[in-house]
Amino acid sequence: MTENLRNAIACADWWVHPTGPTNQITDVPGVKVGHFTHKSGDTARTGVTAILPHDGNLFDRPVHAGTAILNGFGKSAGLVQVEELGEIETPIILTNTFGVADCTKALIKRTIAQNPDVGRKMATVNPLVMECNDGVVNDIQAFHVTEAMVDKAIDNAGTQFDQGTVGAGTGMKTFGFAGGIGSASRRVKLAGGVHYHVGALVLSNFGQKSELRVLGQKPSAPVAPASPAGEDFDKGSIIIVLATDAPLDSRQLSRLSRRSSAALGRLGSYLGHQSGDIAVAFSTQNVKARDGDAVYAGQFVSESCMNAFFHCSVEAVEEAVLNAMWNGQATPSYNGKTLPEFRAFYRACTA
Amino acid sequence: MTENLRNAIACADWWVHPTGPTNQITDVPGVKVGHFTHKSGDTARTGVTAILPHDGNLFDRPVHAGTAILNGFGKSAGLVQVEELGEIETPIILTNTFGVADCTKALIKRTIAQNPDVGRKMATVNPLVMECNDGVVNDIQAFHVTEAMVDKAIDNAGTQFDQGTVGAGTGMKTFGFAGGIGSASRRVKLAGGVHYHVGALVLSNFGQKSELRVLGQKPSAPVAPASPAGEDFDKGSIIIVLATDAPLDSRQLSRLSRRSSAALGRLGSYLGHQSGDIAVAFSTQNVKARDGDAVYAGQFVSESCMNAFFHCSVEAVEEAVLNAMWNGQATPSYNGKTLPEFRAFYRACTA
Amino acid sequence: MTENLRNAIACADWWVHPTGPTNQITDVPGVKVGHFTHKSGDTARTGVTAILPHDGNLFDRPVHAGTAILNGFGKSAGLVQVEELGEIETPIILTNTFGVADCTKALIKRTIAQNPDVGRKMATVNPLVMECNDGVVNDIQAFHVTEAMVDKAIDNAGTQFDQGTVGAGTGMKTFGFAGGIGSASRRVKLAGGVHYHVGALVLSNFGQKSELRVLGQKPSAPVAPASPAGEDFDKGSIIIVLATDAPLDSRQLSRLSRRSSAALGRLGSYLGHQSGDIAVAFSTQNVKARDGDAVYAGQFVSESCMNAFFHCSVEAVEEAVLNAMWNGQATPSYNGKTLPEFRAFYRACTA
Amino acid sequence: MTENLRNAIACADWWVHPTGPTNQITDVPGVKVGHFTHKSGDTARTGVTAILPHDGNLFDRPVHAGTAILNGFGKSAGLVQVEELGEIETPIILTNTFGVADCTKALIKRTIAQNPDVGRKMATVNPLVMECNDGVVNDIQAFHVTEAMVDKAIDNAGTQFDQGTVGAGTGMKTFGFAGGIGSASRRVKLAGGVHYHVGALVLSNFGQKSELRVLGQKPSAPVAPASPAGEDFDKGSIIIVLATDAPLDSRQLSRLSRRSSAALGRLGSYLGHQSGDIAVAFSTQNVKARDGDAVYAGQFVSESCMNAFFHCSVEAVEEAVLNAMWNGQATPSYNGKTLPEFRAFYRACTA
Repeated sequence: MTENLRNAIACADWWVHPTGPTNQITDVPGVKVGHFTHKSGDTARTGVTAILPHDGNLFDRPVHAGTAILNGFGKSAGLVQVEELGEIETPIILTNTFGVADCTKALIKRTIAQNPDVGRKMATVNPLVMECNDGVVNDIQAFHVTEAMVDKAIDNAGTQFDQGTVGAGTGMKTFGFAGGIGSASRRVKLAGGVHYHVGALVLSNFGQKSELRVLGQKPSAPVAPASPAGEDFDKGSIIIVLATDAPLDSRQLSRLSRRSSAALGRLGSYLGHQSGDIAVAFSTQNVKARDGDAVYAGQFVSESCMNAFFHCSVEAVEEAVLNAMWNGQATPSYNGKTLPEFRAFYRACTA
Repeated sequence: MTENLRNAIACADWWVHPTGPTNQITDVPGVKVGHFTHKSGDTARTGVTAILPHDGNLFDRPVHAGTAILNGFGKSAGLVQVEELGEIETPIILTNTFGVADCTKALIKRTIAQNPDVGRKMATVNPLVMECNDGVVNDIQAFHVTEAMVDKAIDNAGTQFDQGTVGAGTGMKTFGFAGGIGSASRRVKLAGGVHYHVGALVLSNFGQKSELRVLGQKPSAPVAPASPAGEDFDKGSIIIVLATDAPLDSRQLSRLSRRSSAALGRLGSYLGHQSGDIAVAFSTQNVKARDGDAVYAGQFVSESCMNAFFHCSVEAVEEAVLNAMWNGQATPSYNGKTLPEFRAFYRACTA
Repeated sequence: MTENLRNAIACADWWVHPTGPTNQITDVPGVKVGHFTHKSGDTARTGVTAILPHDGNLFDRPVHAGTAILNGFGKSAGLVQVEELGEIETPIILTNTFGVADCTKALIKRTIAQNPDVGRKMATVNPLVMECNDGVVNDIQAFHVTEAMVDKAIDNAGTQFDQGTVGAGTGMKTFGFAGGIGSASRRVKLAGGVHYHVGALVLSNFGQKSELRVLGQKPSAPVAPASPAGEDFDKGSIIIVLATDAPLDSRQLSRLSRRSSAALGRLGSYLGHQSGDIAVAFSTQNVKARDGDAVYAGQFVSESCMNAFFHCSVEAVEEAVLNAMWNGQATPSYNGKTLPEFRAFYRACTA
Repeated sequence: MTENLRNAIACADWWVHPTGPTNQITDVPGVKVGHFTHKSGDTARTGVTAILPHDGNLFDRPVHAGTAILNGFGKSAGLVQVEELGEIETPIILTNTFGVADCTKALIKRTIAQNPDVGRKMATVNPLVMECNDGVVNDIQAFHVTEAMVDKAIDNAGTQFDQGTVGAGTGMKTFGFAGGIGSASRRVKLAGGVHYHVGALVLSNFGQKSELRVLGQKPSAPVAPASPAGEDFDKGSIIIVLATDAPLDSRQLSRLSRRSSAALGRLGSYLGHQSGDIAVAFSTQNVKARDGDAVYAGQFVSESCMNAFFHCSVEAVEEAVLNAMWNGQATPSYNGKTLPEFRAFYRACTA
């Protein structure tokens, strides 16, 4: 059962923009999220998370999108084409680093099932699969992620979804604590009374424990919690997915994505060398059929209105990471260690 | 009096897309071009060329734009912001390398004259000034370019303009020959019978003489022409400006710009180390007032229709460079040499 | 048996820089190339090609590298990290679009076999797998490429290798003709008598037949050859791999990669919308162990010397594509058509 | 008299890496900084700041450099070529937005004075001039900045320099308070006992007052200070200059630059739409003469050691901005308002 951190701790004035109705990425109408969590035996603590920009045929009706490679130490699939064409044409799949290949194949097969000419009379499809390394607790060398998990995650997709140590976030570690999937949203108000939403979902696996800031403060516990011994570096990666129902074009969505670095900075990240920090943003507007008219009508947002989107996205990403941590449950590792729970630690710090 | 090379030499089948009515960038409705040519004494052979995307207040009604830094060995002003915001908010000014500063100031002052709050209550303005080094024939260290020349070039703008050794192209050298300003256009036909134009204007100052290809052939003269002695490298730069009346967005305009490298390759360039090869493209469509509605209606071109634009732009850029050479007149240098005329050379080669 | 096009047709003066000893990428000392060709039944005409920058443990001793996304319509794996870190840490694998996933897994497993802590105590590995769509003659939906083919291609690697319709090039189409793998090399001479090599290997699957230029000329046959009916667009992609034994750093290698667009232009490409045109360059110099000293000695090439590398790379890429075509053998398609042979066509044109 | 904020307020544990000897960018050996402050009459509150990577002939001995365009809403000169060639070949000049042109000309003339063939037999020079808009207190439309101020700032350069409302920072505003120039440094310790420095200098003119975080906390005053009325947006820009004596190459320096966004995030920025946030980093190592040997020996830093540099640079940039604010003195505006002093405000908040 997912809980928003903001309901548990005092955070008045830290964030200034209002959340959407559920404070999740699915506050953007049409967006759905589904998980498949794979915990099995002593070694498998991993999974797959799917984000659907809409639940139609995405290859036929791609969504406008932009990206930001904040730190390119990462093995995600599909980013190059998203950047070139400004569109996403499959569900967005999150998983672990060595699971990217199987998830890619699953997306190709699903796309062919819906569009039989893909790769033949039509172009091939560009699967968008992004990853972090859950190798601290999951035995990543065992290749636990399978093609079937993608289908199950997509089938599970809805407007309600869990956060923390679930789906692709099952084995992830954020600032030294268990937890990978988090989400938040903001309501964007433009001049003239127009309203839109910005939603964020993160697959979070980054951060140096000693650098963590929660609402700007470095928490310190009276007694140090049990934790995997040894190094404490800013490494491991974070994948950030932003959604909006505003008709932003691909360049504007790239600008939006780039702001995520400010959110990471607020949390204590310095975009560590080994942290593949990557953001992708899409809009649910101005969608049209691939083989529709050569020229079609749509809407634009004035560039001078981007500020509100930027501020809201930074707030949503920061809160999404904290929600990922807040909902993480202590996770035993395949190698005998245990990733500790943030919630207990934080309560001890603030008691 | 400008002549199109295609009217003088046989080029059937080399280019396959039809030109616009005048085979110039001004075939894109609303676009105007003006020159100020400065030849004076023994040392001044330079000038300014202005391209107006429309003749209204560009700061108030900027045009969507994209760029391609094919080789960033260049000192142009304004490209960083055009890339970020996807728009051009001043006339586009071409000049020599050391003239950029004065042209920048001239554009700032013109913008303030039209928009008195610029830099005060409003943001500052981003002057777009691009350059090549005409230091082979013009004494560039003399700083011959002045602010007033910008105003005169803009005042001279119209739909008819000269090519060759005029305006900013007065002292430029292309593949060893005199000539800097060239233009060409194409008519783009999309599925469904929709028509648009793509126009190109170049400030050309690049190319290694021994590598020149004209319609794919290396011309060779029975007798080598008089030429400045010494080195023959691919250096010097080319600025490429593309215009279209199709409603391409800024990302698509960046894609369009990037195709210019193929045109340079056809001509014999290898994007030499010291050649600042830069392309900028703008659309005359989807223009709106800076402080207009937060959200406004516009048109998009399907990504799958981009191919026709790409092919047309490559043809137009290639032909524009040849037109710059074809219309160049032998130009004596400040240091006693003379830049030879291409037309005479080519006629000798093909006699 | 591979033949260099330059030995068969007159090309004096077209290229000016001397080739390396064998006019192949393997003229760069230490570089090896291997193929696995998979032709089976009526539907499988595909394969894998491996390029080894050196034959040691590449994860432990990565090579400096740079990239150029000339047109990002592509599904290659690994480019984002190569761009960020400026290094390649696996063999470079070429294959078809839907084979990327399996080739990726094969490289991960090979890397783990050599470096057992990868993904556990060490970072994960970044497999570099690049692709074109051979779906014109190969039934790409059948997923013919397997992990085992990667091992076989690597095992086959040596300094001699075939060109044309082999390895990853088995089912590829260049300007309408059969042929995918081509190579060429140049000897680079710097001031002071220093010599290096630049080698190119292409997986070529691009080009609009009616736009092909061979040594600058559009060939025209007295009788049109048998060819797959229908469309003739510039689509399909080209992957370009450049190698050098000069100590270029990653930024310089990115600059080198970007020049490939000029070679494509010479051949008649306009960087078509659906053509994923991607170049990668690496140097065999300044290699050191991953966990070696924090600071190590190396060599730099003066930026002012880059011109010779640029010119040589453009020549090598152009010639490599022509060699891919020249060595292509007519290839029947899974759907009843046949990709014609370029050599016969060209001889008919020039008879 | 400049004071480091860290000497005035408690900041134990907020920053973890040790400073250099003076906690300024000039802790990097060889680096010098000079100001020219121009306050005159009621309208001129502006100036120029010069940073010298070394005090030799920079055109003849350029330094390796990299850049990060965090938000490209800016009018700086020279960034495109720095990114392409990875080097800086003039002093780095900071000034106001409309002063860029004059500073550019001053740098060209200085370079010619030292290298008489520039623009003639040699290439032109790439002046690096970066800017923020001081139009809140300075009458920017009056074009107060002159060429002569560049020479004076360079002549004033030394290892000691003031911070706050001086030089280019005279009229700048940070999070609503007076102050533009700030600096800080860190000592970087690599494995094996190797030590280097990273220094930061900012021209700071960004930030939304209500979002400011000082050491992670939003300060709140018992009584709101006098301040210019009206809007409070994140706009205005920040220029960040990073220096190091570690032999980082240009790609690594670009990576270093990009981390600045995390520092801005810590301070409360969301990289506002109108804030041109730009970072440039240079190394004082591996310098050689422009026309020296084609190949030269140098040093590299292992990529795996970059983490320490990243962390140190984020700390230094954050502290540099706070130092800019701490040393700012209340500044009356040309239009009757006054930019308030941060130090007084902060003391009231924490009393």
